[in-house]
Amino acid sequence: MTETIISSATKEVVLGFNRPFVMIGERINPTGRKLLAAEMKAGDFSRVEADTIAQIEAGAHMLDVNAGIPLADEPALLAKAVKLVQSITDVPLSIDSSIIEALEAGCAVYQGKPLINSVTGEDENLERVLPLVAKYGAAVVAISNDETGISEDPDVRFAVAQKIVNRAADHGIPACDVVVDPLVMPIGAMGTAGRQVFALLRRLKDELGVNTTCGASNVSFGLPQRHAITGTFLAMAISNGMTSAIMSPLHAEVKNAILAADVLAGNDANCAAWIKEHREPVPEGEGRVRRGSRRRPA
Amino acid sequence: MTETIISSATKEVVLGFNRPFVMIGERINPTGRKLLAAEMKAGDFSRVEADTIAQIEAGAHMLDVNAGIPLADEPALLAKAVKLVQSITDVPLSIDSSIIEALEAGCAVYQGKPLINSVTGEDENLERVLPLVAKYGAAVVAISNDETGISEDPDVRFAVAQKIVNRAADHGIPACDVVVDPLVMPIGAMGTAGRQVFALLRRLKDELGVNTTCGASNVSFGLPQRHAITGTFLAMAISNGMTSAIMSPLHAEVKNAILAADVLAGNDANCAAWIKEHREPVPEGEGRVRRGSRRRPA
Repeated sequence: MTETIISSATKEVVLGFNRPFVMIGERINPTGRKLLAAEMKAGDFSRVEADTIAQIEAGAHMLDVNAGIPLADEPALLAKAVKLVQSITDVPLSIDSSIIEALEAGCAVYQGKPLINSVTGEDENLERVLPLVAKYGAAVVAISNDETGISEDPDVRFAVAQKIVNRAADHGIPACDVVVDPLVMPIGAMGTAGRQVFALLRRLKDELGVNTTCGASNVSFGLPQRHAITGTFLAMAISNGMTSAIMSPLHAEVKNAILAADVLAGNDANCAAWIKEHREPVPEGEGRVRRGSRRRPA
Repeated sequence: MTETIISSATKEVVLGFNRPFVMIGERINPTGRKLLAAEMKAGDFSRVEADTIAQIEAGAHMLDVNAGIPLADEPALLAKAVKLVQSITDVPLSIDSSIIEALEAGCAVYQGKPLINSVTGEDENLERVLPLVAKYGAAVVAISNDETGISEDPDVRFAVAQKIVNRAADHGIPACDVVVDPLVMPIGAMGTAGRQVFALLRRLKDELGVNTTCGASNVSFGLPQRHAITGTFLAMAISNGMTSAIMSPLHAEVKNAILAADVLAGNDANCAAWIKEHREPVPEGEGRVRRGSRRRPA
């Protein structure tokens, strides 16, 4: 089965159908985060540092890094963010921008094989991004929309994904380095959004054999208890073949649903990760110094 | 698509691929509940009454009723329990026993069209249970094991299900009245249990077109945080076509996963059930008398 390898200088992450699901932390992204945007623009990256640490501690396997701030020097900011994050953690990164110069600047400073996020099915975009993917020997997120927008017909989105895979091959990029994003719409706005994505994921796995990702939190936009919706969506997506997502590992409900889905998909051998995550704490007084207690002097 | 109708004297529940998932409350069952068993045997059904009310309040669409107590008059106990539960609630029932005389006694007093739980693929069992299903115009849970036991091969279990559907047809029972239980093993003991069931559910839907159910809590046996595993399992099963389960609606994580899966499968129109379940409570002082506050005399 297809395996996609993403790496830092010292660590590899593998996306695959028989592998644990890959959680790509979404937090380092100034879109919709005014404070972070203002700080980054002013050269203060302390929140990027904090978001890096928090997401790694919460179990992220990779981190997405985005510096999309209006009227800022995005290439310079993205390169700076990539360097900073790589100085803190060894997990591989997804370099995220809609601006080719920013992707180039991020790739230029990156240590390892990055995931470039993203290319679409638009001809102009393909011809700008794919040479960069080939140049850096990277993997790429392929978003299944094209000049006509995002189709509500999963067959059209499948065709766009197929087009991107074929075009990538023309640039010497193997299908295993194309990670398709089937595009997840808010279920509150479009009741068929889940069904569409599940059907598409199944075809992407069975017919194209490609790994997949998505911006998961979008699915629950506008709904109450949205993290429960996002987590359940991810479990159902895993059951239909999705192998990674750009999401927040900080929400316990979301992370827990992913870990449970790994168990149920048979991708957590002996339930080891699940049991480790939920191991009962050692009872007080057994092998631990109790909080607030003092050892008597000997 | 196939729809299975189960009814009481005044209420229908429909199992179907484009319908909200049907939660069948599992609590009225003395197996493994010593106190309940002793009480029922002694003629004290107060706990049956309490379990009925609690499960209905928690949102069960149907209730399973079982009176399997060693060395007790199970037919009499099951008939008494069925009558009692039907005097309290109008949700349809699943009449649950491995003893044909108990199933007969339960059906004899039941008002409506029950779900008989269950028949297996064993020839002797088929020839005893199916005539009863036909006599009462009931639907039946078909468990996909036979004389050779429970196969680990999903293709064998599919063949057993197909055999039961065919044999039911010989008795004039349509496929829509056969609800197949694909048999869910504990994932902690058998890492492939989930994959097997998901593959089987897909074939049962696509090739046999039958509705499905299972005893859901079995999947998480022996694991920490088991309700999270059960809930996630049910969401993934729904994504693969499962239409009902015998489970406890009292565990919020399990119920929530089912409601979220209904949303994501496109079976909760306008997310109405989800929003109703999670509607923010009215803030204190706005249209509500605060707990513990007293209205001043006018």
